[in-house]
Amino acid sequence: MAIQNKSDGRYFLLDANQIVKKISNREISCESLVRSCFERIEARDHVVKAWSQLNKSSAIKESKKLDKVQKRQLLHGLPIGWKDIIDCKGYITTCGSSIYKNNLALINAAPVSMSIRSGAMVLGKTVTTEFATSFPGATTNPHNPLHTPGGSSSGSAAAVADFMVPVAVGTQTGGSVIRPASFCGIVGFKPSFNTISRYGVKQVSDSLDTLGTFSRNVKDTALLLAGLTGRKEYFDISKIKPLKIAICRTENWNLAEKMMIDSIYLASHLFSKNGINIKEINLPDVFKSLDSAHHDIEYYELSRALQHEYLTTPNLLSEAIKMRIVTGQQIKLSQYHLASELTQTCKEVIKEKIFSKFDLLITPSALGVAPKGLTSTGDATFNRIWSSMGVPCITLPGFTGSDNLPLGIQLIGPMRGDVEVLSKALWVEKLLKKSL
Amino acid sequence: MAIQNKSDGRYFLLDANQIVKKISNREISCESLVRSCFERIEARDHVVKAWSQLNKSSAIKESKKLDKVQKRQLLHGLPIGWKDIIDCKGYITTCGSSIYKNNLALINAAPVSMSIRSGAMVLGKTVTTEFATSFPGATTNPHNPLHTPGGSSSGSAAAVADFMVPVAVGTQTGGSVIRPASFCGIVGFKPSFNTISRYGVKQVSDSLDTLGTFSRNVKDTALLLAGLTGRKEYFDISKIKPLKIAICRTENWNLAEKMMIDSIYLASHLFSKNGINIKEINLPDVFKSLDSAHHDIEYYELSRALQHEYLTTPNLLSEAIKMRIVTGQQIKLSQYHLASELTQTCKEVIKEKIFSKFDLLITPSALGVAPKGLTSTGDATFNRIWSSMGVPCITLPGFTGSDNLPLGIQLIGPMRGDVEVLSKALWVEKLLKKSL
Repeated sequence: MAIQNKSDGRYFLLDANQIVKKISNREISCESLVRSCFERIEARDHVVKAWSQLNKSSAIKESKKLDKVQKRQLLHGLPIGWKDIIDCKGYITTCGSSIYKNNLALINAAPVSMSIRSGAMVLGKTVTTEFATSFPGATTNPHNPLHTPGGSSSGSAAAVADFMVPVAVGTQTGGSVIRPASFCGIVGFKPSFNTISRYGVKQVSDSLDTLGTFSRNVKDTALLLAGLTGRKEYFDISKIKPLKIAICRTENWNLAEKMMIDSIYLASHLFSKNGINIKEINLPDVFKSLDSAHHDIEYYELSRALQHEYLTTPNLLSEAIKMRIVTGQQIKLSQYHLASELTQTCKEVIKEKIFSKFDLLITPSALGVAPKGLTSTGDATFNRIWSSMGVPCITLPGFTGSDNLPLGIQLIGPMRGDVEVLSKALWVEKLLKKSL
Repeated sequence: MAIQNKSDGRYFLLDANQIVKKISNREISCESLVRSCFERIEARDHVVKAWSQLNKSSAIKESKKLDKVQKRQLLHGLPIGWKDIIDCKGYITTCGSSIYKNNLALINAAPVSMSIRSGAMVLGKTVTTEFATSFPGATTNPHNPLHTPGGSSSGSAAAVADFMVPVAVGTQTGGSVIRPASFCGIVGFKPSFNTISRYGVKQVSDSLDTLGTFSRNVKDTALLLAGLTGRKEYFDISKIKPLKIAICRTENWNLAEKMMIDSIYLASHLFSKNGINIKEINLPDVFKSLDSAHHDIEYYELSRALQHEYLTTPNLLSEAIKMRIVTGQQIKLSQYHLASELTQTCKEVIKEKIFSKFDLLITPSALGVAPKGLTSTGDATFNRIWSSMGVPCITLPGFTGSDNLPLGIQLIGPMRGDVEVLSKALWVEKLLKKSL
């Protein structure tokens, strides 16, 4: 990634908390920060291809406006990258599809408005796979351009990892936040379902779609989340040492790469050494069908969400997504209901049987490092059931796997326990930085 | 309403099932039906004001196209009225606000696409209150123009009641489907949460917004629901006699008008006479706070959903909605979480304690008849908790209250029990028609 030490003016290296502090103290201007981000983008994006749309002059104009505002908000002057299924006024929302190459957004999506209310600004739109499903965009992994950055929030993860923007927003239906963050070696957070508003975001599955964040540290995640929700409670956190963590063996555990499993046990060993109670658990049997329930719900709901495109411009859809739509249309109502009921049962079981005993679960963020090649964004096996559960998941970097590529470990907490998960992730992050 | 007997060519009097049958059998053309609907609209809408936007030439063109299609789908040729917060391609989605007077929809909302896939067509857009909240539109009650039609789906209810369109679609966050249907004397159905896709619909509250239907009989409700979801299971129902029905006394029972309570007991007496087991119940104590939880969730989520409008054009918002946004912004995260958790608890309690013992609940659809005056669309006291529960609710007409205005009774079933609720409502509808 060719990042050495921060020298004067290389503001793009600053993290989000440093940025809002320095802007608030008038140490740097919003404009100089944005110009620095664009310098980095201009130097690097021909390789990383994280951005689907940028408007430098408009961004600089916006930063100048923010420089003139006296009252400084929580996110004042913070530039944010937005996954290109999220409407940002004045930008085209392509959804990673040629169908929407001219789809100019006339209003901001609700989370964009919330961030603007907190003083943030749009830096640009980041590459998404086609309609946030499987067909990849052009983005490469900042650590090695021959490898995928993961997806579907490919550009958001890569742009933050490559220091082109301090923070970015993406969405997860299966594993589209946690997996790319892990592959790119940054912090990815999928909060509890419906924590960040989804209004103005292209839909895949109403029951599953969850907005999430990308940043380079946990404190930045907390800051961004507070801005996106207008609730400072997310930011006012301090480190909390977890008491009990369970290593959670899920279905397909055996598919994980050795270095991923090693990282999980290495982290667990560190936890244990620091006095945290560690236990290894299997999920109750009812979870065995959860992955298949996720499939049924996603495909059933995707087939109606994309019905307009399927009816009017099927020739502009990939074969992969058409197959999903056709499959979804054929799912029987009773099968969809069974899947919804099983999901609800699992939510109740995990609350009563698992999170009554453990603060956090630890589990792989992905099978392993980012696979080579750009035709697939990787496998979401270790993410889908957590998307179904709606529980907060965070992936923390610090580990390394094959090809010297980064690996993330995933920490999972109970529904609406986001503040506690972030507080404990802050503690874990410090431990990992000290120990690895 | 000045409807006498159906004479030749007065196709607007036909119900949805008759329409699709006659169109399928080539007894009538889609075009002649649409022309007949427009005749009725031209005769009546200057009083009822149910429509916010109509495009007669485009609708007739569409009907001619459908006449040429050989293969007949489930809803072939059926004209539908769409609440004006739902995107219909080529129509302006005003959301009942001057902010969106030029807001041309470029794509169809998912439920509109699903209906088109089933062969239906858009007749026009129906009047909504401002952003489907409280500030009323111009619509009057078809039974008496001095009375409200109810809201927020005012135009959808009034247009169907006044025979201007056989069926229409609306949304309910508090009581915006069941109440106007009751006030206008027709069948209103709020299915289980997330039964009809919400994608492309202006959002009030992500946790509560539910699309629902208006029709003049239960079988039409089932037909429309099957078309909107692409699942014929909703239509393939036959009458089922309920075994056990509970009269459900909720908070604020004492606010209901005498003639509403009389109607509930009259219906219960009829059920009892027909061998149905009737019991009167109070909801468990945990439900006492549910109405306030509904308030917190609705306002918290509305304040982010409408943040763009609040930031950019506050002067074009009513004072009523601005007050809601400000109130919502001040709700603490912990209060929102408590409200969400209470709602979840109530969902589990109603499933385990109530619907394990009863097929259906019967409760008022509204306080009473449509109140006089057009400055308020009435009170949603008897609807909000059921919106929170996400359970299917249907209001059936047939009763009369003060001022000779219609009254509806509300039947409620368990989550995802929509097929059974419709089957039982079919039985109840027949009983009421025979007995009242």
